[in-house]
Amino acid sequence: MEPWRDTALPVEARVADLISRMTLEEKIAQLAGVWVSAAASGDGVAPHQDELAEDTPPWPEVIKYGLGQLTRTFGTAPVTPEAGAKALEHTQREIMATNRFGIPAMAHEECLAGFTTWGATAYPVPLAWGATFDPALICEMGARIGHDMRAHGIHQGLAPVLDVTRDPRWGRTEETIGEDPYLVGMIGAQYVRGMEQAGIVATLKHFAGYSASRAGRNHAPVSMGPRELADVILPPFEMALREGARSVMQSYTEIDGVPTAADTRMLTGLLRDVLGFKGVVVSDYFGVSFLETTHGVAGDPGHAATQALTAGVDVELPTVRCYGAPLADAVRLGAIDESYVDRAVTRVLSQKCELGLLDPSYSPTASPVPLDSAANRAVARKLAEESVVLLENSSVLPLRPGRIAVVGSLADDPLVMLGCYSFPAHVGVSHPDAGMGIEIKTIVQALRERQPDLTFVPTEAGVQAAVDAAREADVCIAVVGDKAGLFGRGTSGEGCDAPDLRLPNGQTELLDALLATSTPTVVLVCSGRPYTTPPAAATVQTFFPGEEGADAIADVLMGQVNPSGRLPVSVPAHPGAQPSSYLSAPLGYRSEVSALDPTPRFSFGHGLSYTTFDYRDLRVSSPEIPVDGSVDITVTVTNTGSREGVEVVQLYLRDPVAQVTRPQRQLAGFVRVPLEPGRSADVTFTLHADVTSFTGRDGHRVVEPGLVELHVGRSSSDTPLTGSVTLTGAVRRVGPDRIMTTPAGYSAAEH
Amino acid sequence: MEPWRDTALPVEARVADLISRMTLEEKIAQLAGVWVSAAASGDGVAPHQDELAEDTPPWPEVIKYGLGQLTRTFGTAPVTPEAGAKALEHTQREIMATNRFGIPAMAHEECLAGFTTWGATAYPVPLAWGATFDPALICEMGARIGHDMRAHGIHQGLAPVLDVTRDPRWGRTEETIGEDPYLVGMIGAQYVRGMEQAGIVATLKHFAGYSASRAGRNHAPVSMGPRELADVILPPFEMALREGARSVMQSYTEIDGVPTAADTRMLTGLLRDVLGFKGVVVSDYFGVSFLETTHGVAGDPGHAATQALTAGVDVELPTVRCYGAPLADAVRLGAIDESYVDRAVTRVLSQKCELGLLDPSYSPTASPVPLDSAANRAVARKLAEESVVLLENSSVLPLRPGRIAVVGSLADDPLVMLGCYSFPAHVGVSHPDAGMGIEIKTIVQALRERQPDLTFVPTEAGVQAAVDAAREADVCIAVVGDKAGLFGRGTSGEGCDAPDLRLPNGQTELLDALLATSTPTVVLVCSGRPYTTPPAAATVQTFFPGEEGADAIADVLMGQVNPSGRLPVSVPAHPGAQPSSYLSAPLGYRSEVSALDPTPRFSFGHGLSYTTFDYRDLRVSSPEIPVDGSVDITVTVTNTGSREGVEVVQLYLRDPVAQVTRPQRQLAGFVRVPLEPGRSADVTFTLHADVTSFTGRDGHRVVEPGLVELHVGRSSSDTPLTGSVTLTGAVRRVGPDRIMTTPAGYSAAEH
Repeated sequence: MEPWRDTALPVEARVADLISRMTLEEKIAQLAGVWVSAAASGDGVAPHQDELAEDTPPWPEVIKYGLGQLTRTFGTAPVTPEAGAKALEHTQREIMATNRFGIPAMAHEECLAGFTTWGATAYPVPLAWGATFDPALICEMGARIGHDMRAHGIHQGLAPVLDVTRDPRWGRTEETIGEDPYLVGMIGAQYVRGMEQAGIVATLKHFAGYSASRAGRNHAPVSMGPRELADVILPPFEMALREGARSVMQSYTEIDGVPTAADTRMLTGLLRDVLGFKGVVVSDYFGVSFLETTHGVAGDPGHAATQALTAGVDVELPTVRCYGAPLADAVRLGAIDESYVDRAVTRVLSQKCELGLLDPSYSPTASPVPLDSAANRAVARKLAEESVVLLENSSVLPLRPGRIAVVGSLADDPLVMLGCYSFPAHVGVSHPDAGMGIEIKTIVQALRERQPDLTFVPTEAGVQAAVDAAREADVCIAVVGDKAGLFGRGTSGEGCDAPDLRLPNGQTELLDALLATSTPTVVLVCSGRPYTTPPAAATVQTFFPGEEGADAIADVLMGQVNPSGRLPVSVPAHPGAQPSSYLSAPLGYRSEVSALDPTPRFSFGHGLSYTTFDYRDLRVSSPEIPVDGSVDITVTVTNTGSREGVEVVQLYLRDPVAQVTRPQRQLAGFVRVPLEPGRSADVTFTLHADVTSFTGRDGHRVVEPGLVELHVGRSSSDTPLTGSVTLTGAVRRVGPDRIMTTPAGYSAAEH
Repeated sequence: MEPWRDTALPVEARVADLISRMTLEEKIAQLAGVWVSAAASGDGVAPHQDELAEDTPPWPEVIKYGLGQLTRTFGTAPVTPEAGAKALEHTQREIMATNRFGIPAMAHEECLAGFTTWGATAYPVPLAWGATFDPALICEMGARIGHDMRAHGIHQGLAPVLDVTRDPRWGRTEETIGEDPYLVGMIGAQYVRGMEQAGIVATLKHFAGYSASRAGRNHAPVSMGPRELADVILPPFEMALREGARSVMQSYTEIDGVPTAADTRMLTGLLRDVLGFKGVVVSDYFGVSFLETTHGVAGDPGHAATQALTAGVDVELPTVRCYGAPLADAVRLGAIDESYVDRAVTRVLSQKCELGLLDPSYSPTASPVPLDSAANRAVARKLAEESVVLLENSSVLPLRPGRIAVVGSLADDPLVMLGCYSFPAHVGVSHPDAGMGIEIKTIVQALRERQPDLTFVPTEAGVQAAVDAAREADVCIAVVGDKAGLFGRGTSGEGCDAPDLRLPNGQTELLDALLATSTPTVVLVCSGRPYTTPPAAATVQTFFPGEEGADAIADVLMGQVNPSGRLPVSVPAHPGAQPSSYLSAPLGYRSEVSALDPTPRFSFGHGLSYTTFDYRDLRVSSPEIPVDGSVDITVTVTNTGSREGVEVVQLYLRDPVAQVTRPQRQLAGFVRVPLEPGRSADVTFTLHADVTSFTGRDGHRVVEPGLVELHVGRSSSDTPLTGSVTLTGAVRRVGPDRIMTTPAGYSAAEH
């Protein structure tokens, strides 16, 4: 037996042996994907799909030397799970039969909010995950998605998105978890844990800085210095890498003139040398070609390939264009040393080896399972319920018996529940005959089940009809927001960037007309980004809550579910004045040197309940701790209302004097605390000094001695309890092994 | 005679001798200003004026050890020039009589758009200078302003502003010269040349990065990497330093977490060690205190003083707070070495010595001159004329005889002609009894002189009255835009930031109503920033054109003056979607990956004329030049219309493949070419390879070999002629001695 087939040998030895037997062509063949079912004409899911994939040669030619990755065999067109699994199995057998070593391809698929295939559970989008403040539930969801993908022959999932929201005008804001890196990291890392536990290679993306594109325009250049990158953008990646993520996707971004796909400092110096990443870096789709075609740092595909491979992009996705013949030619011409090919193929084959793909016993046979099981739906429902955010409520909610008018076409469209990467919204739009594959209620349907005689007025009926209906009703529910789609086919989603945060399509005018009536109006925003809306009797925010979203929303409106979601992004007071973030140094807040007040209408972390919670007795276990110590911060929270509810207790830090400017508020801990009426809980956060660390003047991460303020409460702007702890000792440098999370626990107790 | 009094000795020797005789208190006294006439109560010109200046001790105490600077003895309250000069002379005599060495103070004053004092010529604002594309005329203006200040006892002028526009929502956009660093540098450097020739110390500000505050909010944190800083923000400072500017003002900004006032790398490493600056760095007003009070990097005034002095801020302005007792205490406690005090006082006294202030013969006697002479007004008029930009014109301009309706209150307000640093707008607002001190016509007055029977409808009359007047007229002139003021007292100016680029105060609604009539409407925008306006029969843009602005505008509308201004900033198509700049890498332009089209309504460099110009025959003197060579680019421009006019011929570069992303278009040369109808001119730009340089991957400025595209034409988006030149040789590193400008010449010739 050749050593590389010997499963008793260590991975390193097997892979080294295998590579020593491979030709340059065979090695390079492992460094790219092929998008098998991407049509050469017609609507694609990506704007460059046709143009940059058109040169793909015939199939036997493509797989002659082997193949690194199979791109989206499920998520490109509607196929039944069984047929998809069968086709993938067949394709894998062809690949294995054709290349000298019988190596199968890694099959990858999108899974932003569920396995992106026809008939699979459509979970809420990441911005809704952020709203739950519930990492454990996200872990469970990740495990379910991973399990379903694995059963269908998929090896790698292209999620989670760990970009921290920097400008909500960006169309992909729905794909982010929020505007705070700690929240994004806590939630995103648990998604990774779940996926990886299910045996799927999780792919952290987009590494890094994509969300800060100028003015929120997709792919636009990013202006950012290294400190902001280190302190805001990178922490979620560091947190997720610790959960064992085995792949990272390069970002389309250029930061300060350097495209990430060509940035050795980012993809090798930082990711591998500093953060210790051992897995595979894949390109974002067409990301290698973009070095030539959009960034203008490469003159041809070979030049793009050499830059990307040198920087540390191991695999070109979705399909081969630069990493094929152009790369081989570049190696032969000496434009790039073959050792870079060996480095990348070692990583790729090591991963295949670890996954068993090089084992003699490997079989590509899949074992399809139901993709929208009752258990899946239960998790989707719980997530949806926990993600609904009650922003304001002058006692109109929960709804009392009476005449209800529901206004706005979004209320009766099931696609309004989905983000742009859920299959029906992602692909279904261009395949209207196939149906959605999953049952998705509309808000109107869900409300009618609970209150059969409601009146519904679609947007097309006109503002006057809506106003008339509202006037006849005891309460009006105005459903406004987005419909997700790709590249201009929606008002939110990839490529659907907004010039400002005014509701699209005249919905503000509709709201103004409804709010001018004397009927109490509930504004229900179902969107992929925060929007500025006028004050109303009640305002409820949901972020594409998934296939179970309508029932979750209806239960919250009717009072069966007590809302517990919290804002993962600020809702601004003015539709302009972006970008802004709660995570800002003092001068990012209101100051007398500008007439412009950036105070949001609703702050990061804000969310109401149908009950009320009181905060008291902040206790700090020690007034001083060393710069490598930790401290316990305990508060007592009491449900002072008349029904059970969940409070999201939040800990924020402020460092009043530091060597660089520091955020006015910075989330450092949170915990969901369910409480019966009249009951209290002691909630304790254990804060390690490392959590106060930041990138100092010299570019190194440090814990600085001095006083740190501790603020505990309901949101970033409502922290009734304040304390402090003083760090003692000398400035202490901390590395990537720093402690990044604050364990939080609580005990329910009567007081 | 003590050596320091000996004018025969070199400055270095005199200053060293003087400092050796000074106590710590005497040295420190030279490092701060005092705002003598700043009231301890009432409206100030700066928001922190009262709060941070309240601790100023009694006058004899203040000047006991000497005084570095006298702050704004003219520009704070309305005084006649003679009284102001007398008072300053008296104050100087007190200062000289009180300190042991008889050293007078440097007297500084604002001069953003003229000597900021009652009765002095109010020139157009810098954004209007940019629109002229006429550096020579700016030099003449600078010399006139300098001469007038010098005659009144002023030594230092706090101008020019060299911030490159990065987000026009910023209230201080009116104070910038435009969004292109080459234009800003060419114009700003000539202002410096004029001032310094007149003997006034020019102060380059704000060093550096202020204009990129997040979302255009004044003082908000800046996200920017070192390459953008080097390639966009710094070139105007480098160009102006070569014209002999002797002072630099630190910026309020923090970039990537480090406030400039505490940034040694910026104020010493870059400014002095790299750029070779030898003069005095002054703080922006309260900039040292802000380290403590707004940035949170200092715990008290002494801590702020040590950081700023160490970084390289030599003088605290406007008044002493940190550089007094707190600094002396810090020196005595060993928190800062006295050598930093010596370094700063050496710079301050060297400058005083060079100005003759240490000479035994020095007398503070001023020789007041008329401050709004006919010669001044002629320059102000010419500048105003050249700054009017005709954006679109469907033959409605020049106006033909007929009934004219002028709409909008801004049309009859003289203050609309002025930016927020012109005395009547700056101070006059809070001193309504003193009058403006200069004659300023309104647009209505100027138009009535030319067409006595026009109808004027102020905004207060309501939209219907405006529409009625327009319907009765043959043409309607709608005057919209801004009124400048400080800190919320206007819609443009310092502190008057905008959430978006929609016209303020409902003016878009007024325009929409007027444009719905059948009467051709001329939209005349008089503003401090670009605004999105709807298409009209004609649109004319002026940027606060100064005291002669109304006549200049009227002459353009009537056709006595053929417009020749060009946009120094893009006019966007959508009021949101900021920040944006024409000076952007390819992905900052329209691309298929975003539904949002950032193409402006009117591009940088755009401006029409009442005649037309044809471009032909681009000739490049050589297809290849070495990376340290130069090339001549010649085009032929012909006036193909029926009247004389001025064409601003513009050269743009594009580097299609570079090691970092490069601007899609970059201005590299321009020249105003007056031509009689039917006449042609050969216009030649001499382009040195250094002008193509940029900051490479390794952080060094390089000229890279390869092809550079050359585009010549009417604006950044209308370049009918294209050529190229290929640079040959190896990548060449260039230093601060690089050639930064493109000499342009032309010869009128018949063809």
